[in-house]
Amino acid sequence: MHNCHREVTKWLNAAGAEMTVDAAGNLRGFYAASSSGAPRLLLGSHLDTVPNAGAYDGVLGVVIAVALVESLEGRRLPFAIEVVGFSEEEGVRFGFPFIGSRALVGTLDEELLNRQDTQGISVRNAIKSFGLNTSEIPRAALSNDTLAYLEFHIEQGPVLESLGRSLGAVEAIAAQTRMEFVFVGRANHAGTTPMHLRHDAVAAAAEWIVAVERTAHNHPGLVATVGQIEAMPGATNVIAATARFTLDVRHKSGDIRDSAVETLVRMAEEIAVRRGLMLQQKVLLSQRAVAMDPFLVDQIQEAIRSTGCQPHRMTSGAGHDAMILAEKVPAAMIFLRSPGGISHDPAESVEVEDVAKALECGLHLLDQLANSSEFQKRMSRA
Amino acid sequence: MHNCHREVTKWLNAAGAEMTVDAAGNLRGFYAASSSGAPRLLLGSHLDTVPNAGAYDGVLGVVIAVALVESLEGRRLPFAIEVVGFSEEEGVRFGFPFIGSRALVGTLDEELLNRQDTQGISVRNAIKSFGLNTSEIPRAALSNDTLAYLEFHIEQGPVLESLGRSLGAVEAIAAQTRMEFVFVGRANHAGTTPMHLRHDAVAAAAEWIVAVERTAHNHPGLVATVGQIEAMPGATNVIAATARFTLDVRHKSGDIRDSAVETLVRMAEEIAVRRGLMLQQKVLLSQRAVAMDPFLVDQIQEAIRSTGCQPHRMTSGAGHDAMILAEKVPAAMIFLRSPGGISHDPAESVEVEDVAKALECGLHLLDQLANSSEFQKRMSRA
Repeated sequence: MHNCHREVTKWLNAAGAEMTVDAAGNLRGFYAASSSGAPRLLLGSHLDTVPNAGAYDGVLGVVIAVALVESLEGRRLPFAIEVVGFSEEEGVRFGFPFIGSRALVGTLDEELLNRQDTQGISVRNAIKSFGLNTSEIPRAALSNDTLAYLEFHIEQGPVLESLGRSLGAVEAIAAQTRMEFVFVGRANHAGTTPMHLRHDAVAAAAEWIVAVERTAHNHPGLVATVGQIEAMPGATNVIAATARFTLDVRHKSGDIRDSAVETLVRMAEEIAVRRGLMLQQKVLLSQRAVAMDPFLVDQIQEAIRSTGCQPHRMTSGAGHDAMILAEKVPAAMIFLRSPGGISHDPAESVEVEDVAKALECGLHLLDQLANSSEFQKRMSRA
Repeated sequence: MHNCHREVTKWLNAAGAEMTVDAAGNLRGFYAASSSGAPRLLLGSHLDTVPNAGAYDGVLGVVIAVALVESLEGRRLPFAIEVVGFSEEEGVRFGFPFIGSRALVGTLDEELLNRQDTQGISVRNAIKSFGLNTSEIPRAALSNDTLAYLEFHIEQGPVLESLGRSLGAVEAIAAQTRMEFVFVGRANHAGTTPMHLRHDAVAAAAEWIVAVERTAHNHPGLVATVGQIEAMPGATNVIAATARFTLDVRHKSGDIRDSAVETLVRMAEEIAVRRGLMLQQKVLLSQRAVAMDPFLVDQIQEAIRSTGCQPHRMTSGAGHDAMILAEKVPAAMIFLRSPGGISHDPAESVEVEDVAKALECGLHLLDQLANSSEFQKRMSRA
């Protein structure tokens, strides 16, 4: 990450930005406005990714932000631009995502700093080892003059490709629930137990998984996934006593997500009662939906249209730093088409023309905002 | 096993039988007929069981055979009785069952003798270490004067209990197929991949498992079980790329079993095509159905009725030594009710009254056979 910071710093310095690394390890480059004291627009994404990843997740958004500043060729706008390369978005090391962006909204707290990785190293000590001072984390907070946060990111899904579009305007980040279920039935001999005397946990899980898929198909925009399943004792000739499986449900509306989860839990309970099983359930994660700023989403749509592309308003099924920033400032995202929908994989890619369109869109967007009366109102309030 | 042989030998000697241990480790006790040169009836079961087992699987059938000979109190029948306590029925140590009974029908061959346990000890060497001479295995074969084989055994299933009956007459041992399947789809992000763009291996497996259960319910006497299932990569937020699962199908008719397996494979193929997945399949085991001797089954029914019990004709879903013996001689089995259907577990049990009824049934059966014109015909042919 030091090497990465060095490289990006070189580019942004050359483009006329002042560089710092905040105490949460976020790289921040300040490109001043035409007049001093003008408020700022944040542009960024994350610099980390997952193990065995591709080359574009996160870092492409930072590079596009850098390229936009470079494209200004020293021209100053009525607002400053702060490029942010967030640290530790994925949450791989500490099992907790968005550590960098949380510092900007003031939620990188003591509890989070004390979290440890599998080696027993805390977030706090990892930050110290990186050469930073955790007592300065409060100074990483968003400055009061922040107008908005904009993030370019690969879609990491197949929607834009399936529609044949280059760019998408993200209008919401989906509400998400993750749960774990266990059906507890009774192990029995697969040869000697007639079908009507069984309490088969795998058969119950299968019935429910079919219902999960049907429920998701019947609710536009809902996605529901059983990604993990395990049967015990797990022998070919033994009826399963238990089946343990997970559920991941997402929708841009928290209410629709909640009602879908409620429906699915009720279905599991009904299946358990009818089959004479016990049902155990546990919520692993419940995350509310986050709306992107409607004014910014409209501006992004217009900017996409200005590039000659057909914009697509969409929900992000995955979480992003923009979701964290949205707690404090208007935020929005622009998605670039992901070929094959592939991400977090060495085969992750992006089309060169789509990156060109994203840059063009970004420049239109900066100009639109500079000339928008709404944004001028926001600037005068900041 | 030496201690076990010693104990059973003591009982059978006292009852007037001559004892030997054949070269496959089967304990054999010969109780002579009223006239020398009369043919013999085999009564037995196996002396081994599984680790962490109960007290009745196998050995109860040997003990009932011993008790029947004791009950004769020296009285001689027109046929001799040979009590057999089979060695190694379960197949735990060498991953191959019925080693003892195979010696009687001549299929304990070189290949089987060379099989090794997890320590690298072969069947051959295990037999030698037990103090026996493998070159004498041919002498363990059934003698030509063998009339039939009868085996008492706990049911190891819930059928008799669910019907409120003590004893069952086994008319067939089920045909059995074990298979392994893999659906190969595509891993994808659970949040960013809309339902209609998925190739979800777990959802496909679930659809198929529901069809397996429905198919079994629709065919009387068919049992079909998916006891093992595993999703890869197996993460809450990742659509499964592969689902690996097993199938166990049994029916007393090999044809019905075959046609059920064919139907289920075709269903899996249809699901794979419709969902854009690949299907891999492998047959792990295919065992034909074995009919018990109809005359003996009728005699058993009559003997059960003579005890005042209501007989139940049934199929054994599990394999037994009787299945092996049936290759060479008429064979049949009498099942005793298994409380809770529990077996291969320390909680395995049997009702004292059911054992009493089994003994009473066995004595009726010996008398019936001694007086049956059909059995007399068989004796004169032997």
